[in-house]
Amino acid sequence: MKELDERIINEGKVIMPDILKVDSFLNHQMDVALFEKIGAEFARRFKDEAINKILTIESSGIGIAVMAARYFGHCPVVFVKKNASRLVNGDVYQTKIHSFTKDQDYQATVAKNYLNEEDHVLIIDDFLANGEAVSGMIALCQQAKADVHGVGIVIEKGFQQGRQRILRQGVRLESLAVIDRFEDGQVILRKDETCI
Amino acid sequence: MKELDERIINEGKVIMPDILKVDSFLNHQMDVALFEKIGAEFARRFKDEAINKILTIESSGIGIAVMAARYFGHCPVVFVKKNASRLVNGDVYQTKIHSFTKDQDYQATVAKNYLNEEDHVLIIDDFLANGEAVSGMIALCQQAKADVHGVGIVIEKGFQQGRQRILRQGVRLESLAVIDRFEDGQVILRKDETCI
Repeated sequence: MKELDERIINEGKVIMPDILKVDSFLNHQMDVALFEKIGAEFARRFKDEAINKILTIESSGIGIAVMAARYFGHCPVVFVKKNASRLVNGDVYQTKIHSFTKDQDYQATVAKNYLNEEDHVLIIDDFLANGEAVSGMIALCQQAKADVHGVGIVIEKGFQQGRQRILRQGVRLESLAVIDRFEDGQVILRKDETCI
Repeated sequence: MKELDERIINEGKVIMPDILKVDSFLNHQMDVALFEKIGAEFARRFKDEAINKILTIESSGIGIAVMAARYFGHCPVVFVKKNASRLVNGDVYQTKIHSFTKDQDYQATVAKNYLNEEDHVLIIDDFLANGEAVSGMIALCQQAKADVHGVGIVIEKGFQQGRQRILRQGVRLESLAVIDRFEDGQVILRKDETCI
């Protein structure tokens, strides 16, 4: 997606050794028009899959997932909770996820009512780095016997282990932009987005 | 909104003395088609306001806010962070919000870059109870000198203090459904939704 690539190059800020901040359009301020195009692109890439549910994880995945659902027949979106409140109790699936960004573990939680063996799931998230969150969502789908048809990511850090972890589990992965490396504080994207 | 009222009556579960669980369509599993109608209804109610930004708070407000933004000229949506990660640093506005649901305080945070005196803000959230989260968002807008044109809520607990707190600050409030009370584990809605 050319527009996404341009936004990353023009607005992304590299902080720390390996963190990309794109909060002007993706995960703090959200560019809803861009989200529509992202949703349409996920639909194009997964058009042969009979998706009937989108799974994401709070918080930054939610906006993208909801917009994408418009292009998948307005299927329901379920968001995995990172900190189960007293509103989530009873029958849940849980798995431990480590956040490298926040350097803490959390119990990712989804209610059994909203994920089950009749679900054909597309997992959507804003970022893929080490693949912790996505692997956690795949694990929750396995517990629920739901069928994972693929993973759709907006920005993948291609130099981290997420891709290998997901592919090793036999799950299809589509990333709309892949960062090859950071160089002198600049983002270098992989050129051929279809070749990832 | 008749459809929303019906969903609350049919699917809402009253737990604890005063908690309504609507996670089958609003804040765990999300009914994206319903969210579109909710967005359109907010647009109808606030059609005379020149909104150029929607402010919400993670996590359950995000899906509704993003969908609503489609009906406000695809204006940007900014979500306030409850737990500022190391990705949010530098120049931020902050205010303390108490969560009665989780019984804890958190520092609600928004980057100064994304809220400023040129913003004409509609605040959107899924629930209004004591008004803590909305009052926090109004406080953040005041810090940023942004102009709050109104607050749009999906479900208001009419027997709690949120409405009074917001109106006392001179801010317009529109709630799509208002719960009058819980009776024998049932939800009793106020009948005239336009009369709130």
